[in-house]
Amino acid sequence: MAHKPSKGLADIIAASTALSDIDGRAGLLFYRGYDIHQLAGTATFEEVAYLLQRGHPPARGELTGYTGEIAAGRTLGSLVTACLPDVAGSQAPMEAMRSLVSLAAADDPDKDSNAAGANMRKAARLVAQQPLLVAAYHAARNGEKVCPAEPELGLAANFLLQLRGAPPAPREAEIFDTCLVLHADHTMNASTFAARVCAATLSDLHSAVVAAIGTLKGPLHGGANEQVMHTLAEIRQAAPDDPVGAVDHQVRDRLARGEKIMGFGHRVYKTEDPRATHLRRMSEELARAGGDDTYYRMSRRMEEIVLAEKGLYPNVDFFAATVYYYLGIPTDLFTPVFSVSRMAGWTAHVMEQHADNRLIRPDSEYVGERGLTWAPLGQR
Amino acid sequence: MAHKPSKGLADIIAASTALSDIDGRAGLLFYRGYDIHQLAGTATFEEVAYLLQRGHPPARGELTGYTGEIAAGRTLGSLVTACLPDVAGSQAPMEAMRSLVSLAAADDPDKDSNAAGANMRKAARLVAQQPLLVAAYHAARNGEKVCPAEPELGLAANFLLQLRGAPPAPREAEIFDTCLVLHADHTMNASTFAARVCAATLSDLHSAVVAAIGTLKGPLHGGANEQVMHTLAEIRQAAPDDPVGAVDHQVRDRLARGEKIMGFGHRVYKTEDPRATHLRRMSEELARAGGDDTYYRMSRRMEEIVLAEKGLYPNVDFFAATVYYYLGIPTDLFTPVFSVSRMAGWTAHVMEQHADNRLIRPDSEYVGERGLTWAPLGQR
Repeated sequence: MAHKPSKGLADIIAASTALSDIDGRAGLLFYRGYDIHQLAGTATFEEVAYLLQRGHPPARGELTGYTGEIAAGRTLGSLVTACLPDVAGSQAPMEAMRSLVSLAAADDPDKDSNAAGANMRKAARLVAQQPLLVAAYHAARNGEKVCPAEPELGLAANFLLQLRGAPPAPREAEIFDTCLVLHADHTMNASTFAARVCAATLSDLHSAVVAAIGTLKGPLHGGANEQVMHTLAEIRQAAPDDPVGAVDHQVRDRLARGEKIMGFGHRVYKTEDPRATHLRRMSEELARAGGDDTYYRMSRRMEEIVLAEKGLYPNVDFFAATVYYYLGIPTDLFTPVFSVSRMAGWTAHVMEQHADNRLIRPDSEYVGERGLTWAPLGQR
Repeated sequence: MAHKPSKGLADIIAASTALSDIDGRAGLLFYRGYDIHQLAGTATFEEVAYLLQRGHPPARGELTGYTGEIAAGRTLGSLVTACLPDVAGSQAPMEAMRSLVSLAAADDPDKDSNAAGANMRKAARLVAQQPLLVAAYHAARNGEKVCPAEPELGLAANFLLQLRGAPPAPREAEIFDTCLVLHADHTMNASTFAARVCAATLSDLHSAVVAAIGTLKGPLHGGANEQVMHTLAEIRQAAPDDPVGAVDHQVRDRLARGEKIMGFGHRVYKTEDPRATHLRRMSEELARAGGDDTYYRMSRRMEEIVLAEKGLYPNVDFFAATVYYYLGIPTDLFTPVFSVSRMAGWTAHVMEQHADNRLIRPDSEYVGERGLTWAPLGQR
């Protein structure tokens, strides 16, 4: 007899994983047994991607090899290069990411293999390629060519360099690196689950990641950080003289109208999202350093009101919005930036699925009419 | 407390649907309450797509309107047109379908809306476009341009015309139309489930369909019909003088080696797949009409042996292989042809998901190490 779970499968264990774990009550997140409070600000994104994809923290030689793979993988294949100007001219960022990763599969030398070694190499290349795709897309839509990477910089610094066309301050690169670490994996979120459903037909890593990107595109998932920024900008624009003061009635009005305030609450955390703790601190640091801390102060006020009114805590998207804003990332690239980081987790989950696979094919409950008779067209 | 289902979610009801229903014990399949034994050979694919997408069999005026939408939607957008030669030159068919549908979103006038009316229009356009994408891809990889459609022909006949470059015999078109009807929907199969997981973040119809295509690509799902044909061709090539006789030991040898014979068995049907009944009959008809019925006779022998040895019945993929072969469809396009038909079901499921949505975000069970301490790089 099939089990009928709550809608959205919230109470269903869809997979076993050794990649990440959440303690929703205590507000803790672990990657392969390491508390992210230990990793944030300590481990680089490359170390975390290695940890997730290859199972243990890299020793020095392993990290050198992996960063070599990342540097070698930071390249646009011939099919992406051929199509990029047209894609950038006619697709919005997440549509474009979906198309470009699908196109990029063509130039991966391991595209036709799901073997463990092939997947491992493809996974590193996907992590290497995603920041370049975002930066190259942004350059192409402005009619420009993306600037070359600097071999001595890490993935985070190179992304900011290639996106903005100028090298970031070292502290900016560190902060962005920590953002990537914080977003790298998060158990069975919707995009990761989509990737595993896809991979479980023994489809390939690129197909699974394309499914994940399309899923992340939705406003109930990756789109939230972008919407946080739009809300802040709207409130500020409506009350340029006192944007922090305006937060009070604006948020209360929205809540009274039954609107959802994006960036708050999470299906799993019953207390503060541990990623939010770090993002709040980094938002404050960048706000102070940049001279205009308005958005940070507005965010803090919004946080107080939503907690008081709805009992909801900020999630990962809330302070990511202002951090990305202060780092000079265009608002419509916030979700693509999420994909830059989550690529580490998606690829690791696909490899885990392939390593011990069974087709994911749930049941459904039929709720329509029964026993109808098909009448010929003339008799309808 | 989370429920831990059997691996692959086989005993979990992941969604309610009014689209299709399977009676696995009796071997019956229904679309919105109509037994497919009634629909096969009676209803056209356009009528079935309308039924699935719009909820009832079309009256004459409704069908005229819908076929008008299909005719108008049979067009390659500017982005697909720009990228098609490069894609066809470097991507295999299902990779290409994934890329082309993602690119095609750019030219859909309703791409930025998930409203019911917009989804309805996009769904019809996706059904119209998919056969053209397959035919245009096939032409482009041969360095040719796809031939124009004939306005007086239906979707099935136009597909065969545009794929083969010559109009099909009327009976060929009828048989292919029935194939499309038989593959149009099938409850919560893996690609449909992937589409719903994607759509449940309120991502858009094209993203969901792209996720479905990537999922269908896997050999445990859509790839099976192609593998059936490869198996038949291998056996025939190894024993050209007595291919039917060779089936016996070839199949027994493969089973003895623990190999899976593709095209047999199904997680849901415990008896013959009702679609196989029709496909067997059509395979026989085409085999007899074409003069060389070797593959059909080989299939029949294979069916007997697998039933006797393993107790497994042929599924939808088994006789679809020879039907498509006799219709002159290249083997590597069998799975894209599956997508031509399943597009009706995928789009209908996404609309059903959007109409009563909740984020699909299951739980996972953590099985890795705990409480580890992150050592600095120099101490590893």
